[in-house]
Parts: sequence; structure tokens; C-alpha cells
Amino acid sequence: MARSAMAFLCIFLAISACYGGYIRYNTSAGIVAGKLNVHLVAHSHDDVGWLKTVDQYYVGSNNSIQGACVMSVLDSVVDALLKDPNRKFVFAEQAFFQRWWRDQNEQTQEVVRKLVDSGQLEFINGGWCMHDEATVHYVDMIDQTTLGHRMIKKQFNKVPRVGWQIDPFGHSAVQAYLLGAELGFDSVHFARIDYQDRQKRKVDKSLEVIWRGSKTFGSSSQIFANAFPVHYSPPEGFGFEVNDDILPVQDDKLLYDYNVEQRVNDFIDAAITQANVTRTNHMMWTMGDDFKYQYAESWFREMDKLIHYVNKDGRVHALYSSPSIYTDAKNAANESWPPKFDDYFPYADAANAYWTGYFTSRPTFKRYVRMLSGYYLAARQIEFLAGMTSSGPSTWSLGDALGIAQHHDAITGTAKQHTTDDYAKRLAYGASEAEKVVNLALPCLTNTNCASSAVNFSQCNLLNISYCPATEEEILDGKSLVVVVYNPLGWNRSDFIRIPVNDDLLVVRDSNGNNIDTQFVEVDNVTSNIRNLYVKAYLGVSPKEAPKYWLVFQVSVPPLGWNSYFVSRAAGKGMSKNGYISAGASPENDTIEVGPGPLKISFSSTSGQLKRMVNYRTGVDIPIQQSYLWYGSSSGDTDSPASGAYIFRPNGAPPTPASRLVPLKVTRGPLVDEVHQQFNSWIYQVIRLYKDKEHAEIEYTVGPIPTDDGVGKEVITQLTANMVTNRTFFTDSNGRDFLKRVRDYREDWNLEVTQPIAGNYYPLNLGIYIADGKSELSVLVDHAVGGSSIEDGEIEIMLHRRMLHIDFSGIGEPLDEQVCVDNACEGLTSRGNYYMSVNELGSGAYWRRTYGQQIYSPLLLAFTHENEEHWKSSHTTKTTMMEDGYSLPPNVALITLQVLDDGTVLLRLAHLYETGEDVQYSAMAKVELKKVFAKKTIKELKETSLSANQEKSEMKKMTWQVEGDNGSFPAPVRGGPVNNVTLVIELGPMEIRTFLLKF
Amino acid sequence: MARSAMAFLCIFLAISACYGGYIRYNTSAGIVAGKLNVHLVAHSHDDVGWLKTVDQYYVGSNNSIQGACVMSVLDSVVDALLKDPNRKFVFAEQAFFQRWWRDQNEQTQEVVRKLVDSGQLEFINGGWCMHDEATVHYVDMIDQTTLGHRMIKKQFNKVPRVGWQIDPFGHSAVQAYLLGAELGFDSVHFARIDYQDRQKRKVDKSLEVIWRGSKTFGSSSQIFANAFPVHYSPPEGFGFEVNDDILPVQDDKLLYDYNVEQRVNDFIDAAITQANVTRTNHMMWTMGDDFKYQYAESWFREMDKLIHYVNKDGRVHALYSSPSIYTDAKNAANESWPPKFDDYFPYADAANAYWTGYFTSRPTFKRYVRMLSGYYLAARQIEFLAGMTSSGPSTWSLGDALGIAQHHDAITGTAKQHTTDDYAKRLAYGASEAEKVVNLALPCLTNTNCASSAVNFSQCNLLNISYCPATEEEILDGKSLVVVVYNPLGWNRSDFIRIPVNDDLLVVRDSNGNNIDTQFVEVDNVTSNIRNLYVKAYLGVSPKEAPKYWLVFQVSVPPLGWNSYFVSRAAGKGMSKNGYISAGASPENDTIEVGPGPLKISFSSTSGQLKRMVNYRTGVDIPIQQSYLWYGSSSGDTDSPASGAYIFRPNGAPPTPASRLVPLKVTRGPLVDEVHQQFNSWIYQVIRLYKDKEHAEIEYTVGPIPTDDGVGKEVITQLTANMVTNRTFFTDSNGRDFLKRVRDYREDWNLEVTQPIAGNYYPLNLGIYIADGKSELSVLVDHAVGGSSIEDGEIEIMLHRRMLHIDFSGIGEPLDEQVCVDNACEGLTSRGNYYMSVNELGSGAYWRRTYGQQIYSPLLLAFTHENEEHWKSSHTTKTTMMEDGYSLPPNVALITLQVLDDGTVLLRLAHLYETGEDVQYSAMAKVELKKVFAKKTIKELKETSLSANQEKSEMKKMTWQVEGDNGSFPAPVRGGPVNNVTLVIELGPMEIRTFLLKF
Repeated sequence: MARSAMAFLCIFLAISACYGGYIRYNTSAGIVAGKLNVHLVAHSHDDVGWLKTVDQYYVGSNNSIQGACVMSVLDSVVDALLKDPNRKFVFAEQAFFQRWWRDQNEQTQEVVRKLVDSGQLEFINGGWCMHDEATVHYVDMIDQTTLGHRMIKKQFNKVPRVGWQIDPFGHSAVQAYLLGAELGFDSVHFARIDYQDRQKRKVDKSLEVIWRGSKTFGSSSQIFANAFPVHYSPPEGFGFEVNDDILPVQDDKLLYDYNVEQRVNDFIDAAITQANVTRTNHMMWTMGDDFKYQYAESWFREMDKLIHYVNKDGRVHALYSSPSIYTDAKNAANESWPPKFDDYFPYADAANAYWTGYFTSRPTFKRYVRMLSGYYLAARQIEFLAGMTSSGPSTWSLGDALGIAQHHDAITGTAKQHTTDDYAKRLAYGASEAEKVVNLALPCLTNTNCASSAVNFSQCNLLNISYCPATEEEILDGKSLVVVVYNPLGWNRSDFIRIPVNDDLLVVRDSNGNNIDTQFVEVDNVTSNIRNLYVKAYLGVSPKEAPKYWLVFQVSVPPLGWNSYFVSRAAGKGMSKNGYISAGASPENDTIEVGPGPLKISFSSTSGQLKRMVNYRTGVDIPIQQSYLWYGSSSGDTDSPASGAYIFRPNGAPPTPASRLVPLKVTRGPLVDEVHQQFNSWIYQVIRLYKDKEHAEIEYTVGPIPTDDGVGKEVITQLTANMVTNRTFFTDSNGRDFLKRVRDYREDWNLEVTQPIAGNYYPLNLGIYIADGKSELSVLVDHAVGGSSIEDGEIEIMLHRRMLHIDFSGIGEPLDEQVCVDNACEGLTSRGNYYMSVNELGSGAYWRRTYGQQIYSPLLLAFTHENEEHWKSSHTTKTTMMEDGYSLPPNVALITLQVLDDGTVLLRLAHLYETGEDVQYSAMAKVELKKVFAKKTIKELKETSLSANQEKSEMKKMTWQVEGDNGSFPAPVRGGPVNNVTLVIELGPMEIRTFLLKF
Repeated sequence: MARSAMAFLCIFLAISACYGGYIRYNTSAGIVAGKLNVHLVAHSHDDVGWLKTVDQYYVGSNNSIQGACVMSVLDSVVDALLKDPNRKFVFAEQAFFQRWWRDQNEQTQEVVRKLVDSGQLEFINGGWCMHDEATVHYVDMIDQTTLGHRMIKKQFNKVPRVGWQIDPFGHSAVQAYLLGAELGFDSVHFARIDYQDRQKRKVDKSLEVIWRGSKTFGSSSQIFANAFPVHYSPPEGFGFEVNDDILPVQDDKLLYDYNVEQRVNDFIDAAITQANVTRTNHMMWTMGDDFKYQYAESWFREMDKLIHYVNKDGRVHALYSSPSIYTDAKNAANESWPPKFDDYFPYADAANAYWTGYFTSRPTFKRYVRMLSGYYLAARQIEFLAGMTSSGPSTWSLGDALGIAQHHDAITGTAKQHTTDDYAKRLAYGASEAEKVVNLALPCLTNTNCASSAVNFSQCNLLNISYCPATEEEILDGKSLVVVVYNPLGWNRSDFIRIPVNDDLLVVRDSNGNNIDTQFVEVDNVTSNIRNLYVKAYLGVSPKEAPKYWLVFQVSVPPLGWNSYFVSRAAGKGMSKNGYISAGASPENDTIEVGPGPLKISFSSTSGQLKRMVNYRTGVDIPIQQSYLWYGSSSGDTDSPASGAYIFRPNGAPPTPASRLVPLKVTRGPLVDEVHQQFNSWIYQVIRLYKDKEHAEIEYTVGPIPTDDGVGKEVITQLTANMVTNRTFFTDSNGRDFLKRVRDYREDWNLEVTQPIAGNYYPLNLGIYIADGKSELSVLVDHAVGGSSIEDGEIEIMLHRRMLHIDFSGIGEPLDEQVCVDNACEGLTSRGNYYMSVNELGSGAYWRRTYGQQIYSPLLLAFTHENEEHWKSSHTTKTTMMEDGYSLPPNVALITLQVLDDGTVLLRLAHLYETGEDVQYSAMAKVELKKVFAKKTIKELKETSLSANQEKSEMKKMTWQVEGDNGSFPAPVRGGPVNNVTLVIELGPMEIRTFLLKF
């Protein structure tokens, strides 16, 4: 008995000396050269909502779902760090940290500042959340990162150096080069890559790479990317969460279960296992997991002992570290790294577990987020234009809610329903505040005497289901419905707007008093029914009778400015001169051609099937069929999961088509032709072709998806073109770059195809296109969806999903969205749009980029009722912020214009084309700031990093040795420094430049 | 929406000012007069072993069983207390605290000292554990309390003021007056009292009482006793453990789920509910539970907010408090309290849930503890006598292990098996260390030249199953087996010892060289078989063939001294002159009378049944039958538990007798007559009647209890005497006072009898007796058991239990003890003794008290092999520590004699009789210390409290108004102050006096 010997030694000494006693653990050693260094990175992965809402996670309520309280994490980490200056901790999610910070007293804030200063507490990632990378738009990624980074800068004067995307389900190229390198990050770290990819990378030690995610920028926007060998948890047996079944180091020889040697050996075994798949003498152990460190001391206590005894043993070396320290060590090592291009999509963690369902899960939530993203951009512009500075509503809450919504379990649709409802509530609240900003700003902006304005504007965010009290209202004599149309784009814009009205005796005049063309389109029954149900469900009010007509007219608005339109009752009774009421027309012969402009589409009048699409201007003529189908969802089996919120796993049967015979209802008019088709009782579609527009707008209404047959369904729309596409298609990365995809193929390893459908799905945010030797067929989407090209010439997009089983990825609920009124529920109906265009080969980019911006930033409509003449006499009806006649170049978009809390103005300009994407537009562009801000004077301009937390000139880049690098990649075209006098900003292809301005 | 208004106010102010923000919670108010004061007492109930071992609880391993780490409790409590000087926490279990304290560095110790000084951290109870109150011996209770109290005194100079017995399953009179009042405690607090009792006490607000547990001392040893209205957890909804499903106070109006008013109302509702059953304006909320405060901040954070907002509301008043502050507040109130006498046994928490099974559960463990308790007393005496002071083994580990073993889930038998094994391991280790102390001390003590001694003593702690290598060994020519017999009692003592030998040609000589009478008794097969199995199971060695004989002889030893005996081979072959080999005798006629001395017992030779017991010296002659029976254990039903480790619930069938015809095997001899009886295949009994002794010793061997019929069994022995006892019997309280018990009756309420057997069981530590107008029948036990008198004239004792179901009291295992060798297991066999005596009415006490001390403190035997003459020439063969011829008075026992770590000597003397218990001995006794320590000089003597942590003269007592108190109770007889010159100590009935001596 080992106890005896020791007991003998100390008997009758002072008891305190014989029995245990204080041991000072030596945790001070940093990196030791020549040894295997195990970097212990203490972290807590704190989802900004998932099984519980973000507030529940913060305060630790609703713990029956999950024991998780972020307050406890932060409170206890601070205490633990104070106990030993060598202890370190990294924290990512600012939505949590900032809330906690605000609740602390000054002493605690001072203590925390010191911990941050000394590097004991390090912010990594540093955005509002750890955003998803598949279903988020790059503007949202930038916004939410900026929100966090600006706070960190302001409170701690710190700039995060490390991307920490440990949990998102696959990783995007835009994340790597834009939300990584362009932020100034030296590295990015993540756990989730394809299981086949991981296996291969473990074998050739290529888990860590130099990732060059941008074709345009190549090595100039590269980043060190570290894919973990297992997960973001510690090696097995080295987790130390309070109340978990941990294996503590027991070093009191007088206690039973003394185990120092055993634990040291375990540690060394785990280190050697990892060393076998890792280059250099440095490896990282991610010492944490979801919502761990509820009581941080429980972890640090054990890590102290491990570091002490492992280093005493000496075979390997352990240290408290951080991803920054780790990156520096990797960089300092004389090592070449494999390069990585493209991205890490799709992600599968097992043969039948492709995480591609979430590209589409909760489509209406995804669409709501995207809609508000565009709205947030516009509202901040208006906030800036109106110079609102002191009190009243702000766009803050919307920015906060959108920041949270980008979280990798929010926008992804992988949170529980109650959490998703909470996200929606936050968004709705934020949107209502932002709407107030706009409603208060517009009178000031438009009125020549701001102070005297008593105008009440309203907006209509349920316009897509024909709900808009302001336009449905009767227009009284002597009054007009004033429609102020704001254009958040930097270009002139001509667009068609549609408002629901109850009267077909209306005329529309522009700001010059000219009557303009109008068209009245009857509101279809499907829309009326949705309107009745959803207005009740979302707003809690029973709407008036559905309006009869959509009033359609064309508006023209200058860049960053507005125009005003006046809708009034026609002078006489009967049909107004300009009005045209669409009426259903029966097919005349076997082929029906539709379209008031150069783009025509034709249908078979017998089957109702789309047959071809022709652009008479360009001559591109492609036979195309279109259909709706659904995959039956797998209900799972013993070793593989069901299709669920995360995972798309069709049950293997061929997809079921909705209907092969689809009656057509065609309405035609001077402004728009519409083709209405009911594919079955729960799939309805309207194709709209507008005058002058060279694309088709498809509005689909899908749902409630029936599941009474016990089978979940994942509904797709399929376009089948007569094109030879060689397994190749192109999808965007976060709405920015387009990446080439090849069916059943991966660039980085020999793909073993286990899921021929789900394994070829990719996330779409902007769109997808295919090309043959002559033409391109492009589809743009209005929110994130999954899409693919499963056969040559084919494009499919998953629009909606509803299922009965869970995919075991943790959510614990089937993805079975419902809408309820008075406790009567039905499956959720999803309505959205997509847009199709056919182009000559090489010409599609212009439409995709330009129209893509219009989809993202629709015109903002504000309504009021006023006397037209009185309005005109006291209001500016049409203007632009810019110099008259100036607009941004067609290859540049203004993606941020925002007043910060210190009064400086944040401006971001983005070049829209990649190198080689377009013959004309993939070139250097110039923006003349003086003309952009024609009515103000720029006093100061500083270029900054993407998240505006450091000056561009101060950013440093690490250099890395890359395998096979021959330096032959041409230097990318980037704009030069800005001359402070001329204030002309150059932008090379794909360049985004960020500035802080003072006026 | 409430958010809107506030959001309006703060928009565009600095963000940090608008969103949440630091709130300073006001927790400073103490007690407020005139309001309902809710005393929040933050505590963690940390079992010293239960579902996990004490070490597992301490370090937090094995958390799959229970998430519990006491290190985390103490670490995090210290951090939490430092955050706000108003926060308070109480801690009880020193076995945990002391281990933690030793592991801290000096800074932490300093910080903790300040917290203790300021009262933020208060030690309550303060013993090594929160001891059980039913199955523990008062000497063990004192020892384990002293262990903790001395540490607290030494480290913090603090004296605990409060008894905190919140979890033990019923409460004893000795706890109240001795381990309460005599420690200087002002109050004692507990949760578990009978459900009927609690209901009545709630109605008449008598949960809080002045408890006068001693008939002898009455109000002079009273204590304020607080029985909680529900349990020791907080009111429902007010627990705040990390990761539990708590209801946090959410006071950030900008968060969703703001709930301050709701939580304040909940608090007030709970306070009013409790006020309705509580006297005065003060109530205690026990803010804790089993192993809570794993992360203390999680509790204090919420309590801060509750105190702040409840006090802001003002309807009731909340404060951080402690049981001491609470007791002071109760004492200060102008209130009369109901008195309480007797005790709180038995405990039931529901109609069919009497917690009386644990009185017997794990009988062999209970016996092991009791055996070591006596051994610990003797070993400390020897440690003192030998003056061992510097190095070598000590009795510390045994004291530690015994301290832990008194825990209310240890000695009770209600811990899991693996935990019980751990307790046994600790005891075995402690015992082996203490044995080393004795083995090293005896040569020094006995040898006239200590330094030259090379004697190796050994002892035999498995003597009861005839295993003793030292005595079984062949005695070589020229050598003797030297038996040194130590007497830890303060009285001269003549006793029979029995050692296993392999030779019947042995003679025994005393220290004067005289041959003394011996008797050889054949070792029976039952014993041989047990020996073979258990030596293998416990020691891991296969013992040699079982010895053939018990060698019996009578020894005579002076008080606190020893005598030596020499066993040698007889000079000639054949039967030795003095030896007498017992041989089985067949019954000669219908009645067989047995007994070599004045006590005779007679049996029916046909049935084998015991018929009567006669003491020919006193003439007491009582017809008695004896039998073994078992209750079938209830297997539980939907609303009531099974019989289990805690609960005794017979299945309602009459108990099954083992056998009605029991063949007798009688052996007779000059020293002892034995009656061997096999009641059935698993119940064996030997009755021994020794020469000169006036009691019968019954050795029972019960087990393995068969359960192959699917029924658990609870085995009793039943004595049925022809006595009219009027439902009355007497059982001891912790081996000290005897309490009168009346079947189916409680003094404090109208008992509704739901369990006529289990509800009449009481714990026995010393024994039980019944009396009629003429005689007394007494039974003494050698370890804790449950017992009762279910019919008039009957006594029953439960000896062993084995069952197949759990009683839902948390343990999660059925009480199904097994013993295993090479993975072959069988049910545990329990062997023990009890002792019977019949006496004239009023005369039984002397036997019970005197022989009770002998049972508790058996002679200590040490063996070695040496040449008799050589030994005698170099060793003191017989002596006493006391003055020759002096012994303690027959009514006084020495219960502690121990060298403390600072060299002072702790002495405790106990008067053994209650007032009125014995005509002769219930009187003042005197002890002459100078004669006790005849060979040393006492330099200093200080009388202290019972736990030796404060001087007796400094102890203060609170005064309380008691209902119905007329001051008529006579002042008890207590010894006067000790004259420092004469050093004579007086002891009144039941008095225990504690002294610190310096020599």
C-alpha cells in the first residue's frame, strides 16, 4: 500500500504537513523549442441561441432544456483568470459579452480591461455572433462583425487577430478571404469539414493549410486555416466541466485514487495521437465545448495540474495558450503548408449525413432576415441623410437582431421553434424601430421645412401577401396616395412597383404631374387566402376584405435619392385613360408565348409546361422545362440519421413531380404579363415578365406541405434546359464570388459518392448558373436556399422542407413549421421569388451582378395621404444625395453608409466583379466621393480594415511558405491610396474598401 | 410593449447607458424590527460519502453517479463571499473543510480567515461529519465532534454555536443535551421529524421548541431546537444551482422575460406560507441542498437580487443570515416556546415509510465500527502511556476514519456498497496504523529497557471467526506464547479470553508462574467454514486449516494496565493437568439446565427451546422462550416504498420462525458451558455461560439469508418472557441515557398507527430492557441494532437484513450485501453477540452500566512468542498506570485519554448513571486524578466544554421562556470546580467532564 510509506514519514508531524497540503502548480512556461508543445486553448462555445433563446442562455433560465448560463461562464472565467496570471481564455460572441460587460460595475470592468490588456482574456472572431457561412449574405457578415469589432476597439482598444468559426457546418471562401484575411486575421480555426476530406488530411497532415479563398486576390488575401482533427472539444477524458463525469488529476498521495502518472500518460498518449496528424511541434487542444465553463475553476484547476505534471514529466510540453500564440508558433516554424482553394462545402460528418438541408430550412425566416438586411442598409442611409443624432428611434435594435440572426443556428433554421420565434420577435422589434426611423426621417428629408412637417408615413412589410392598409384605404376627394420611393442603390433605377388597391379608377402621376402608365392585375385567390391567415397569425388582427387589384406602375428613382408618385381617383367614372385591367386569356393555340418586352417565354397550352425562353434582343433561345417536385425525406435508420433541420437525406425514391398537366392562366398588359399556374393544391406559381426587363420573375407559393402520408417532403423547383454542361455549375459564396462546382467531384480528394443528391447540394445566396458553349442560364434567389445541378442542363433549387423526424444533430425537434390562428395550426406556407435569365456565354455576369443588387436592395416605399398640389409646393419630390447626374459606376455598389455612435460615418464600397468575370466590368473602377456626397463636405477620411477597427495602413500580414508556390500568380488589381484632395476612390475587381469619414 | 418607451429614452445615447447596465444590489440591511424577516441561510449539504465515496465527493470524480465536487463548493463560495461583504455562508463537515484547507496557499488561508472572522463564513455543527443520531455511540459522537472543533479552534479561534443536523433520520436526546447543550450550542436545526408530528407542530406553531433531552439535567442542558417546516432545501422555485432549471430574477427591462414583480410576489407568497407555521417575525430559509453551490455565484447572484427587490417592495424583509443570527433573533423576541422532552424517534416521512430499517442495515459494518471505536479508545491510552510523540504510526488515521464513519449515511448502512467498501478500507487502514502504534508501544511499555526491545507483537482482529496466526502457530520448545492483556477500563477486571489453538497439550501460567485453569472447546464447523471464506475474502489469503480448539482461560487485569500470560506445551504428553476438553453431552432428561456459575438456563431437551433463566444468587427466575424469525420485506407498491436500506416495511405476513425443533449440543466445563444450536441451515447460535458471570452470552451467526424465493428477509431474535410489561420498554439513547418507550404511543401527538411493527422500532446501541413488578430482563448488544417490544413481555432485536428492492430514499441499490471470493458471491453472514441478564427490579442498571462498559471496551490482546523466563526477567508483566490498588469508582468511566497534537492531554470522565437509575450509584462520584496518573505529575488542568474547544468557565447559556415552566425542576447534581491542589474531580449523575491536562 503506497500510502503506508508516506504516512510513516509524517505521523506526529503537524497534521497539516502530513496530509495533502498546498501545491504550487507551475503553469508559467511558454513555448519550449524542440519539444512537442500542446497549446491548451480554454474556450466556451456559446451559441447565440439554439435550444434556448439568447436571453435564456444569457441568464441561465430554461435549464431543463440545457444547463447553460453565459453569465456564469463570464463571471467565473474572470475569477479563475485572476487566480493565476498564466491562465488564458478566449471568448468570441460579442452579443453575449457586450451584454455582460454592460452589467458589470466599474471595478469589474477595470479588472477585465487588465485581463484583456495582459492577454489573459482574448477576444477572437469578435463579431456579434459566430455567423453561419452557408446561408448568410456577405453584407450581413460584415455588419455583424463590425458591430462586435467596433465595441472591442472602443472598450479595450483591441483588434481580434483570429477567426474562430469552430462550429459552422462547412466553411465558405468568402469567410476565408474576406471575413478573414481582409479583417486582418492571421488565421481561422474550425472543426467541421467533410469526413472524407478530414480522413485524407489526417493522413497527409494537411488539416492546416494556407487558404486562398479568392480567385481574384490569391495569395494577397490568404489565411492560415486550421481544421481540427476531431472536434472543438478536448481529447477524450480531458473535459472538466462542473458536474460532468470528469477524470480529475488526483495528486494527493494520501487520497485514494491517486492518479498523476496515469493522467500524465493519458495526456501524452493523446498528444502523440494528435502529433501524428499535425505538422510542426505545435498542436492545439480546444479545451472547451458548448456552454462549458459554467464554473471555470473546474477546468482551470485541472489544467493547472496537467501542465504542472506533464511538464515535470518532460516528454511533451503543455502550456496555456491562445489561437494567436498558436498561430505565431506555426508561423515561426520552418514549415511549408499545403495551399487550399475553393471552400469546404458541402459538409458531411458521415456517409449519409450531408448537412445540406439547412441551406433551405425555415425558408420564410431566411427570407425575413434577407429582407431586413436590405432594409437595414436603406434605413441607415436615411438615418445618415436625415442627420438624426440625438434622440428618438434608431436602427440599433435592428442591427442587434440581425447580428444575432446571422448565428450559425439562427439563419440556418437549426434552432428550436421557440428560439426561432424569439429571433423573429427581435427582428420584428428591430424592424419596427427602423421603420420609425424612416417614417420620422422622410418628412424631414422631403419637406423643405422639416420642423413644420406633420406628415405620417407608413410602410408595408407584408406587401408580398397584398396587405398594405395605406394603399388599400379609400383615397378621399382632394387627396392623393403619396408614394415616396427611396432608392438605396448608387445607380439610377427604373423599376415596377405593385401595390394592392381596392379601386380600378385610379390614376398615377409622377412628380412632374404627368400621368404614367398603370396596370391593374386582379389579386388571385391564393394570395387573398394567405393574406387572411397570415395577417391574423402575425399581427393578431383580422384584415379587412382582401384588396381586388394590384396597381402596377413603373417608377424611376435617382441614386441614393427618392422620387414621389401620386395615386388619385380618376376624374370621371369608368375606365381611366391609362388604366389597363389584366384579364385572364385562354390559350389560343398549342404554344403560348408571353412577355411584353424582349424576353419571351412559351408554354404548351395542352400540358401547361414551360417550353422555351427567348431573348429577342440577344437572340439567345433555350428550350427549358420547369417543374415542381419533392424528395421524400428519409426517416433515418439505425446508423444514419433522418432528414432534418440540418441534414438533407432523401429516402432514395425518385422525386415526385407535383403535376405534369398544369392549366395556365395568362394575363397580359402593357407593363407586365403574368402566367398563373396551380401545380397542385399546395403549389402555386406566378411568372411575371415586365416590359423592358430581360428576366422572368417567378413567385412561388409552396405549402402547407402535406405530411399525412407519414413522409416528410423537401420541395424543389427544377429547370431543365437543353444544355451540355459537363457536370459543371456555378454557385455564389455568400452572395459574392461565384465558385465552380462539379457534380460528384471534389477538388481536394477522391470523392466516394454516398448521397448523389444531397452530396451535390450547395448553398445559394445570390444564385446559380450553368453554361454551355453558347449560352448561360442564370437563376437568382431572394434569400438563401440550397441548389444543385443533378443532371447536365438542369438546375434545381430547394424551396421548402417539412419533415417528421429529427436528424440527431441536437435540435431535438423535427423541422415541422406551423402557422397557428386561434390554436388551429397548419403547415407553414412559403412564398418567395426567383429570377431567371438567359444570356450569351460570358454576358450573364452583368445581369447577375446588377439585378442581384436590385434584389438585395429593393426600392423602399413609404405611403401617406395628402393633397397632391399642397405636397408638391412644400416638398422635394425628387432628389439624390449625389451630384445631379452622377451615379456610381455600374461595377460598384455602396454596401454600407452609416453614422456611428461617435458621429463618424462608415462608408463601404464594393466592386462587384471578379477578375475575368466580365469583359467590360472586371476592371478598375473609380468613385468620386465629392460627387457622391455632393451636399456635404468631407473633412476627414481614413481607410480602415473591413470591420473598421484599425487603419488600413497599420495592418500587417504574416508570410507563409506554401507548397508548390512559384510566385507566378499575378498581383491582383487593387485601388491605390486615396488622395485627400481629389477624394477619388479606386476599386479593383472584388475589392471592398472601408472608410471612416467626418463631415 | 414596455420596451418601446425605454428604448425611446436611450436611443443615440451611449449604447452602454441604454441597454441594461450595472445595478448595485443593496444587500446590507440586517434584521428589521416589525417586519417579517426572512433569514436566508446559504448552505451546502455535503454528505461525507453516500452515493460516492468521500474522496470522490471531494475531488468531483465519478460524477456520472452524482454531480458533486466539494472542492468546487468551497472554492466558489470563497470567491462569491468576496464579492459582497453582506453575503454569508455556513459550512458544517470538517472532514471536507479540513482537507480543502490543507490544500490552500497562504493567501487563500488568510482570505478565508478574514471571512470567518467577519462572520461571512461560519462553521456550524463543526464536527468531522454530520453524524447519525440513531446508530452511533456517544463516545464516537464526542470524538468526531472534538476532532472538528479542535481544528476550527486552532485555525480560526472560533467556537461553533449551532447544531446543524439537518439530514439525520430522526434525532436523539443525547444529541440535544450532550452533543448540543454541553458543547455550548445555542440551537440545533434539523429537517427530519415524523410526518404526523410535523403536521401537528405546523398547526400549533411548535416546530421550534426548547428541547430538554435529559431527564437528569432538565433545563440546565436545554437547547433551542428548530425543525424545518418542509426540508432543508429552499421554498420551491428558490433554488439556484448552476445547471439546474432555475427561475432567475430577470431585471433587465430590455431583456425578454423581465420578471421582477413576479419573483417578488413568489417570494412573499412563500414567506407568508412559512410565517403561518412559525412563531415570531423571524423565519429561516435554508438556501441550499445536497452538494449545491458547485458554483456559488449562481446562488448569490439571485439572492442578491431577491434581497434587493423584496426589500424595495417592502412587504417582507429579506437578509443574508446564519443560524446563529437567526437564533439570536428568536431569543431576543418576547416569545414563549413549547418544551420538548424525549427524542424524535422513530422517523417516518409517510404512513408506510418508517426509517427504522437503518437501525440494523449492514450489521457487520456497524459491528466493525463499534469494535474499532473501543480499540481507538484503548490505542490512544497506550499512545499516551508510551509517550509517543514524534514519529512512527499514530492513531490519527483511525480517528479520521471513525469520524467519517459516524456520518449519517455511513454507520447507518445507507451508503452505496462501493462507498461502504471505501469506509471499511479507511477503517482497516486506520486500524492497521493504530495496531502498529500498539505493537510498537507495548514492547516499550512492558520492557524495562525500551530501547533494547526487539519484540514483535501481533494482534488478531478476526478472533471471532477463530483466525489468529499467532496463537494457531506451533509453540516451539523453550518458547511460550506470551499473551499481554491490556485493560482500557478504569476498573480491575476479571474476564475470560478465548484463543484458537491447534494443540490440546497446552498449559497457561500467569505472571507469577502459577498454572491457571484452562478449558479447550472444539471449534465448531460453522465457525471453521466462516473462517475459511472470510479470511480469503477479507485478507486475500487462504488460511491454513482451521484450528481445532478454543483455549479458554480467565485473566485478571488491573485498571489502565496490563497482565501477561504464558501458554506453553505441557511437559508430558496426554491430557494436561489443568486442561479440560469440552465434549458434547446428550440431553439426559426433558429439561437440561446449563451454567457453571450462579446463572442457570434450562432448555427443553425435546424441542431444544429455551425455557427459563434463573439467577440462583438473587433468586430471579423468569420463564423465557427464545427464537429466530424473519419478517418478509415489502417489495413496495405504487404509493409506498419497499423495505430497503433506510426503511423497514414488513410485508404484513406474520414473521416466519426459523425452526421450532432445535437440537441442542451442550458442552460443559469448569470455565464455561456452551449450548450450540443450529436453528436452520443459515442460523446458528451458541449460548455461553461463564463461571462467576451472571449473564448469558449469545453468539449468533446469521446468513447467508436466502432470497431465492424472491422475498427479502429481516431476521430477528425474539425473547418472550412471562412478564406483564404494559406496552412499556426501555431503550438507550446513543449508549447513554435510557428512554422509556410505550408501544403504539408518542408523547407529543396522538399517534395514528400505520405500521404496528416498524413504527415501534427504536435504535439500540447499549441495549433494551423490560420490567414487571418484580424483575427486569435486560439485553445488551455489541453494536447498533434496531429493537422493540411488540408484545408485552417480549423483546426483539433485528440482527440482519437482506432485500431485493430499493426504498426510493435515494441510494439506488437494494440492500443485498454479498461476500465474494474469486467472483463467487454469496449473501453476507453476520456474526455478533448479545448478552442477557435477569435481575431484581431496580438492580439491572448496575449490570447494564458495568457490563456495558466491558462490551464497549474489551480486553486488548497482544501476542508474541518468547522464552517465559527471559521475558519475565526483562519485562514488567503486570502493572497499572494508576496508583496500585486504586481504581475509578464503579459509576465512573474514563471515556477519553488522548495526547493532542500540541502535547496536551485530553481527559474525559463520564458518570454512568442517571438520576434515580440506581439506589447506590446514582450519586456524586469522585475521581482522584493524582491517583489516576500516579506515575506522572499534572502541571496544569483546565476544564473545557465537551469538545475541548473552550474553557468551561467561559461558556454562556441563553435563557428562554418556556411554556408551562414553573421552575419546579430540581437543580441537577453537578460536580464542583476542581481544586488545583487536590485534583479531585466530582461527577454528578450523567455528568461528563472534559479536561485538558499538562504533565
